[in-house]
Amino acid sequence: MGESLKGLKRTHMCGELRESNIGEKITVMGWVQRKRNLGGLVFVDLRDRTGILQVVFGEEINKEAFQKADLVKPEYCISVTGELVKREAPNNNIPTGMVELKGLNIKILSESETPPIYIKENLDAAENIRLKYRYLDLRRPDMQKIFSIRNKAGKVVRDFLDENGFLDVDTPILTKSTPEGARDYLVPSRNYPGMFYALPQSPQIFKQLLMVSGFDRYYQIAKCFRDEDLRANRQPEFTQIDLEMSFVEEDDVIEVNERLIQRVFKEVLNVDVELPIARMPYKEAMEKYGSDKPDLRFGMEINDLTSVVSNSEFVVFKNAISEGGSVRAIKVENSADMGRKKIDKLGEFVKTYKAKGLAWIAYKEDEIKSPIAKFLTEEEMNGILNTMNAKPGDLILIVGDAKNSVVFQSLGALRLQVAKDLDILKDNKEFKFTWVTEFPLLSYNEEEERYQAEHHPFTMPMDEDIPYLDTDPSRVRAKAYDLVLNGEELGGGSIRIHNTDLQQKMFEVLGFTKEAAWERFGFLLEAFKFGPPPHGGLAFGFDRLIMFLAGTDNIKDVIAFPKNQNAFCPLTEAPNLVDDKQLGELALNIKKSDKID
Amino acid sequence: MGESLKGLKRTHMCGELRESNIGEKITVMGWVQRKRNLGGLVFVDLRDRTGILQVVFGEEINKEAFQKADLVKPEYCISVTGELVKREAPNNNIPTGMVELKGLNIKILSESETPPIYIKENLDAAENIRLKYRYLDLRRPDMQKIFSIRNKAGKVVRDFLDENGFLDVDTPILTKSTPEGARDYLVPSRNYPGMFYALPQSPQIFKQLLMVSGFDRYYQIAKCFRDEDLRANRQPEFTQIDLEMSFVEEDDVIEVNERLIQRVFKEVLNVDVELPIARMPYKEAMEKYGSDKPDLRFGMEINDLTSVVSNSEFVVFKNAISEGGSVRAIKVENSADMGRKKIDKLGEFVKTYKAKGLAWIAYKEDEIKSPIAKFLTEEEMNGILNTMNAKPGDLILIVGDAKNSVVFQSLGALRLQVAKDLDILKDNKEFKFTWVTEFPLLSYNEEEERYQAEHHPFTMPMDEDIPYLDTDPSRVRAKAYDLVLNGEELGGGSIRIHNTDLQQKMFEVLGFTKEAAWERFGFLLEAFKFGPPPHGGLAFGFDRLIMFLAGTDNIKDVIAFPKNQNAFCPLTEAPNLVDDKQLGELALNIKKSDKID
Repeated sequence: MGESLKGLKRTHMCGELRESNIGEKITVMGWVQRKRNLGGLVFVDLRDRTGILQVVFGEEINKEAFQKADLVKPEYCISVTGELVKREAPNNNIPTGMVELKGLNIKILSESETPPIYIKENLDAAENIRLKYRYLDLRRPDMQKIFSIRNKAGKVVRDFLDENGFLDVDTPILTKSTPEGARDYLVPSRNYPGMFYALPQSPQIFKQLLMVSGFDRYYQIAKCFRDEDLRANRQPEFTQIDLEMSFVEEDDVIEVNERLIQRVFKEVLNVDVELPIARMPYKEAMEKYGSDKPDLRFGMEINDLTSVVSNSEFVVFKNAISEGGSVRAIKVENSADMGRKKIDKLGEFVKTYKAKGLAWIAYKEDEIKSPIAKFLTEEEMNGILNTMNAKPGDLILIVGDAKNSVVFQSLGALRLQVAKDLDILKDNKEFKFTWVTEFPLLSYNEEEERYQAEHHPFTMPMDEDIPYLDTDPSRVRAKAYDLVLNGEELGGGSIRIHNTDLQQKMFEVLGFTKEAAWERFGFLLEAFKFGPPPHGGLAFGFDRLIMFLAGTDNIKDVIAFPKNQNAFCPLTEAPNLVDDKQLGELALNIKKSDKID
Repeated sequence: MGESLKGLKRTHMCGELRESNIGEKITVMGWVQRKRNLGGLVFVDLRDRTGILQVVFGEEINKEAFQKADLVKPEYCISVTGELVKREAPNNNIPTGMVELKGLNIKILSESETPPIYIKENLDAAENIRLKYRYLDLRRPDMQKIFSIRNKAGKVVRDFLDENGFLDVDTPILTKSTPEGARDYLVPSRNYPGMFYALPQSPQIFKQLLMVSGFDRYYQIAKCFRDEDLRANRQPEFTQIDLEMSFVEEDDVIEVNERLIQRVFKEVLNVDVELPIARMPYKEAMEKYGSDKPDLRFGMEINDLTSVVSNSEFVVFKNAISEGGSVRAIKVENSADMGRKKIDKLGEFVKTYKAKGLAWIAYKEDEIKSPIAKFLTEEEMNGILNTMNAKPGDLILIVGDAKNSVVFQSLGALRLQVAKDLDILKDNKEFKFTWVTEFPLLSYNEEEERYQAEHHPFTMPMDEDIPYLDTDPSRVRAKAYDLVLNGEELGGGSIRIHNTDLQQKMFEVLGFTKEAAWERFGFLLEAFKFGPPPHGGLAFGFDRLIMFLAGTDNIKDVIAFPKNQNAFCPLTEAPNLVDDKQLGELALNIKKSDKID
């Protein structure tokens, strides 16, 4: 068993000691990063969350301490008391490198077995081992830094919102299904056997009710839950900076939130975000970048070739256009000599986005090479090159389809894939923000043959588009806005409906019967009868934000105790079995498998 | 449908307008508190979260606005633009009482039906109505104030802990059973049919793991969950200020936490808490106050009469003492003339705490009245009066029992009951803090015939008592401390075990087999193999703290959307039924009732 502190107090953190502390009597506590015995001297690199300090023990300095120090191994937890001295051979790689601690006393507070993973930066260990021994994984300096960033970012967010009149109000975790439409996690009720609470997918309805309550400005850094099959960078529980404001329109919400983001990037990374952040209507984002979250760190915009090739003999283009679709392209500079194999691979790639194929034109110095050249007149070919503003050396990649959505999605994805293949963003440290606005309110779900809400059913239509709710719902734009950073959605929100009739209308368009709408959201519709204020808000993905701030593309790196891809925790082994008594109290049976055994 | 803002911006909040704003063009937005039509003038009291402002509309001021203003009813949501003027008949009851707004323009943003509850302070409405229409209940100024206090308190806590080097780290909600021993809420897993996550009763194990990770100081304002039958002031989900520190002993944890509490009371209530807060060992608290959470706002301490009556003929006392128990009493000043009926009622009261009865002595001016006088010698009677330091007019209430725990609990409860009956604490605004220390580590559960942890199984025994773990476990004191305020536990914590062997020993004493201990808490025992630091921490009941700060004794007042006594939410009607498809995905069946129908 380790030694007790018995009144011993730490005086300093390891990483903060400097030449100005020389001569002071110091007590530090931490973990042994490494130990070297050089005969009469034992050197220990001692680590705490602030950094590393070299400690030297000597037979001549203090024999008892020297002997005890020689017993320590990596990851032993120790305290050392001694005098800070100037280091004879300075180490310029660490901030404490000018000093060392002459160890007069050492306590071994606890011993350590050999850890199953290295406690060092940039560890290359299997994920399941890292998660099983998460407490060791979190000892690594890069992980410590991430959670320091997460702490700081949360603090900055709270400080800013507090200064701007937002009240932190926490909303229930044990609640009712929320309207995001993903699968809920359920919690069986003991008091009402056969009934269930749902864990919230967001605090959406509660924050709207808080506006009805007159709280005026609300925020919460809120846990949210979705029981979905986990794609990369999704977790069953995640965190959202959630806020809502009364008596506002789009500009008001955007203005305060871009100041918030500016503050976070400044205080956490010392990066200046220039305001106002540019805005781009959804339509433009789709037409130029084939995406509602355009990555603006590079060009390669999509151009419309429809009018240029509208009379083309090429049957793919002809059909696409005659069926109401379009022909569009991107230009890859200096890639005219991309090999046929690579181009074919890109062709396969766009097919995963339902494109029928990829046409291409390689504008070489000496010739124009293209499998579709034979279908094009010279005028058409020149028209394409002109429209694309192509120069010798450029490669043009073209998709035509009867469905514009296929054209946009495949070219948007192709644009990103090509940028990745060509490593265009290597060493790019930019943060390119844009607000995407004027989203469609609804999208048509062809499988289910009904409209569905693009954001959620509480989103306010743009005033001038309300009449189309009856005549052409897909034409209605929403008072919605997403903040996009480097091709990822950082947050999104909208002005909300605050009127029972319009809200009911919206549910109707979404195919809810009046009864079903009241069954699920009746309490909100009821609340709107009592003087609801105009209101709107936004939610940022807090985990996603931290990923940007920490420079990691793995969401598990920014959550202290994450689940793996199967929503399983290798550390605690949750979920696990519970005893029959508890199931009995909840009036539950586990279904036997249908398999015959 | 209400009018749109269409670019109209609020310039001020209602409650902030003062004489210095006179002459300014103002736009305010809020709710109609009341409207009076005095012929050519319409007065509207407009309310937002900051207060109330009088608005006057006149036929002469602006006829259109005047006519529209006459249409509004209570709780309509409106905006008013106009000029701030001096009020002819000032109202000194509200901060804006020197001014009024001359309404030039009014927008009716939304209408309101007659609300089912009054929007006013100190509402006396049925709880279920308040909870069903919570969004209206929360509009009431006293509720708005409570959530402003809650927001402020949370902010102060975070600022303080941030300044003191604590990192905010959030821990999982979907996790494994935690060791508090109450019933868990369960969440069925879809990926692992038949298995369940548990919602945490506290972040206890995770915060200890964070210490193993070297985070040094952690905090979180954390949601916790217990599926218990709800007593008053319990909620299925509640909030805890949770913190943990490495390289500390009791004094270190106590010191930082009493500064935290001092800061909160100063910044939220402008109340000075004097430091250091006094400490009282558990034994003293029990002997003097019959409680481990003594209310120190009044005296009436318990005195030990055992030695005085050790030779008494009174069989109750005689038996109590001979069986190893004691005889103890409290003195109620100036209550010798308490009627027989009231005293009998107190006798019934102590029986609910398993006392066999209540003996009493009324020390009147002219006589000593007592049903037990006949059993006592004069010397014994004088001994009692002397020990109790009784004066004429005092009433002495005595309990003797073979079990000291019965004596303490019944007299402790009696002391509080008498104080309540006599209204001793009426108008008492004091905050009387004390740390209770040196708790027993274990208590013996007679029903289950085993020891159980008084706090939780991770609590460190006091060094000098460790040997008694083998020989006399009930004698072992813990390095545990509770902060008590006015007779309520505000928070509690301990230094933790950080050693696998001692932790295993502790599980053994608690009757876990080695296998069972590893099955449940193996990941913590495993973590302790890798250089765990000495650590300890504390958790405050955040809701309880807010109740003190807000001056309410109802926990539902400090939670925005609470459940009722049946863990039901009258607003959302959670919990509720879910469809069979979802149950199927979770491999669950609802058990049919056993009843024959």
